Amino acid sequence: MNIHIPRGTEDLLPEQTKKWQVIEHTLKQLADRYHYHEIRTPMFERTELFQRGVGDTTDIVQKEMYTFQDRGGRSLTLRPEGTASVARSYVQHKMHGNAEQPTKLYYLGPMFRYERPQQGRTRQFTQFGIEAIGSADPAIDAEVIALAMDSYRDLGLRSLKLVLNSLGDQESREAHRQALVDHFKPHADELCADCQMRLEQNPLRLLDCKVDQDHPSMQDAPSILEYLNDYSSQYFEDVKKHLDYMGIDYVVDETLVRGLDYYTHTAFEIMSEAEGFGSITTLSGGGRYNGLIQDIGGPESSGIGFALSIERLIMALDAEGIDLQNDDELDCYVVTMGDEAKFAGSQLVYQLRQAGYKVDQDYLDKKMKAQFKAADRYAATYAVVIGESEMEQGVATIKRLADGEQKTVAIDQIANEIQQGM
Amino acid sequence: MNIHIPRGTEDLLPEQTKKWQVIEHTLKQLADRYHYHEIRTPMFERTELFQRGVGDTTDIVQKEMYTFQDRGGRSLTLRPEGTASVARSYVQHKMHGNAEQPTKLYYLGPMFRYERPQQGRTRQFTQFGIEAIGSADPAIDAEVIALAMDSYRDLGLRSLKLVLNSLGDQESREAHRQALVDHFKPHADELCADCQMRLEQNPLRLLDCKVDQDHPSMQDAPSILEYLNDYSSQYFEDVKKHLDYMGIDYVVDETLVRGLDYYTHTAFEIMSEAEGFGSITTLSGGGRYNGLIQDIGGPESSGIGFALSIERLIMALDAEGIDLQNDDELDCYVVTMGDEAKFAGSQLVYQLRQAGYKVDQDYLDKKMKAQFKAADRYAATYAVVIGESEMEQGVATIKRLADGEQKTVAIDQIANEIQQGM
Repeated sequence: MNIHIPRGTEDLLPEQTKKWQVIEHTLKQLADRYHYHEIRTPMFERTELFQRGVGDTTDIVQKEMYTFQDRGGRSLTLRPEGTASVARSYVQHKMHGNAEQPTKLYYLGPMFRYERPQQGRTRQFTQFGIEAIGSADPAIDAEVIALAMDSYRDLGLRSLKLVLNSLGDQESREAHRQALVDHFKPHADELCADCQMRLEQNPLRLLDCKVDQDHPSMQDAPSILEYLNDYSSQYFEDVKKHLDYMGIDYVVDETLVRGLDYYTHTAFEIMSEAEGFGSITTLSGGGRYNGLIQDIGGPESSGIGFALSIERLIMALDAEGIDLQNDDELDCYVVTMGDEAKFAGSQLVYQLRQAGYKVDQDYLDKKMKAQFKAADRYAATYAVVIGESEMEQGVATIKRLADGEQKTVAIDQIANEIQQGM
Repeated sequence: MNIHIPRGTEDLLPEQTKKWQVIEHTLKQLADRYHYHEIRTPMFERTELFQRGVGDTTDIVQKEMYTFQDRGGRSLTLRPEGTASVARSYVQHKMHGNAEQPTKLYYLGPMFRYERPQQGRTRQFTQFGIEAIGSADPAIDAEVIALAMDSYRDLGLRSLKLVLNSLGDQESREAHRQALVDHFKPHADELCADCQMRLEQNPLRLLDCKVDQDHPSMQDAPSILEYLNDYSSQYFEDVKKHLDYMGIDYVVDETLVRGLDYYTHTAFEIMSEAEGFGSITTLSGGGRYNGLIQDIGGPESSGIGFALSIERLIMALDAEGIDLQNDDELDCYVVTMGDEAKFAGSQLVYQLRQAGYKVDQDYLDKKMKAQFKAADRYAATYAVVIGESEMEQGVATIKRLADGEQKTVAIDQIANEIQQGM
């Protein structure tokens, strides 16, 4: 009786991990160029971290978390996203006191959400994200956006759209909130039940409603951009000016909102415009959070971050027909004939690997012809043949498989022959 | 109020992740040279996989697993080790039918065991492991052992000891089992309660007992090596002969046992002999399992694998005084003076990063002197200064920080200057 993989999760088999290795290497190199440093937090945290740091009223916390008690009775939760954990670590390790400021961190690893599985959405998925904490300079908002765009561009994606908005500071948000209440109140009984609740609790979320999106009152709803105070307005102008200098195209969309209270100022999303990508075109998003660190017990700190799902990134690569196969050819395949030659084969394989070459041999007692077939399958550059009589003389025959050229040399000269291209 | 990290888990901060990156890169390169391919399985599996694949009677399954119900009522368990998951994936994806045989896989990632936290033992820890499935050739046992040793050697470790044993095939094990029962039965009432139970259930585990290790009957307990049948004995001789040809030293220890029923033939452990490593000197272990794949529902397949803990590997590196710091110097730090120059600064930083350089700038409105101090702290090779007047002329001053040499050039020539070493 077979035991299957848990629903909504996937194995990555060698054919796929080769692609993943290229992606991860590219993203880590990118983060390094931007001077972000890797941080790794545990796969689970105390449940209250996400209740506080993601928000009690969000779908994630209410419906999608993997929460369990450990054997000591603590409530733990598999991390549903990365920012709360990084913020917890920032506070715990008092990183605001470090000499290097702002603190620029990146992470790359599994996240867990109990959602209905569908294409590009698994219950365990992988995020690459960055957080820059400790600066309220518009230039760093532009840096984070640039890195987000380069995450895709460095892998060859071209059909991308950057959407930008400002949510303003607390004062601007409150003015906008009041304007939204004043605008929608007269239509309250025409809106869905959820929206009637949102009107009380978080009127900004009204603009996200799928049910009421065609209601006439949506068309002329007050825009946050009309309610930005001078500081917020200047901040947004400066972010855009940095992007202009950098030559990064964007579209301002005043309906782009992020639900949580601690989001402020810059919000952005990156979409794929590739044909055949499917209906959900958002690849990733990010934004500024000026209250989060304080909310979870740290000092007042400005932060901005972004996160992307590797699974969705791969969907975009597929939609644009970009193939990232890693090179997987063998340098050499060692063919042996006879019982004693097997030992000399192991010895040579080991020596060539120690010299840095990628080498393999047969472990299934195959005949010589089948061993050569394996060498071809693995796209080996060279085959080396050791038979009983060669072994006694301490020699082996090296053959270049592309053109069949071969010669017989002392076994301890094989590494040299490979190095010199025979 | 702060929210702390869960007990028994750790953050890896940038100073540590730099070391981890070197280790992981080295191990992946090593696996690649040996022609092992990466597989990634989910962080959790159905609980019954580990009950069956690790064993119902083991401490891991009885005391140390993180088991929980998901929102659909399934019993899931955070993986406590890697072999069971790889075996599950091998069966599920019918890898025995692949053209490339044996199937050579490696994995690298977090594992979870609820144990009492102590130095070098955390509840989330990281394993690198390999599995070679589908070959019963002594040469591949030697290959797995060689790769295990190279995992440490490639990182510079030298004080290593390889301990080897054979557990024989099923027939040999049964003969040995009977001999153990016959030997210990007369002393049963002198042994501890656990050992009395082991005598019934799994007499091999008696040899592992810490309580009874000094009992006289332990000294002359029958050795498995005396009970190997011809096939098992020849198999063990061949494994050792391969290792001899490869020049890999080992010590045979007939008391090295592995508890589970499906272990057969080769078993090995690698110890650190570094001074100051502490009392637990075992770094890692591995062995052959010829029944596991069948036990979890697959076809009869021979397998052999090994796994190491990265946390213990790091303890060994520390004990031998090996430092793996990754290079973290900036190529260039961009210094700006004045509001408009900030935008030109962002532009230049972005262009240099696109050209492949590791670059940063100030995001805290620091004065010029403090910006140069940051350039020094980040060990930048060059500083580039852009002031308001330079900006208007489209030029900037590049300074080599090692010797103070500087020149003023067009901004779009800065990348060239860095490339040519100024």
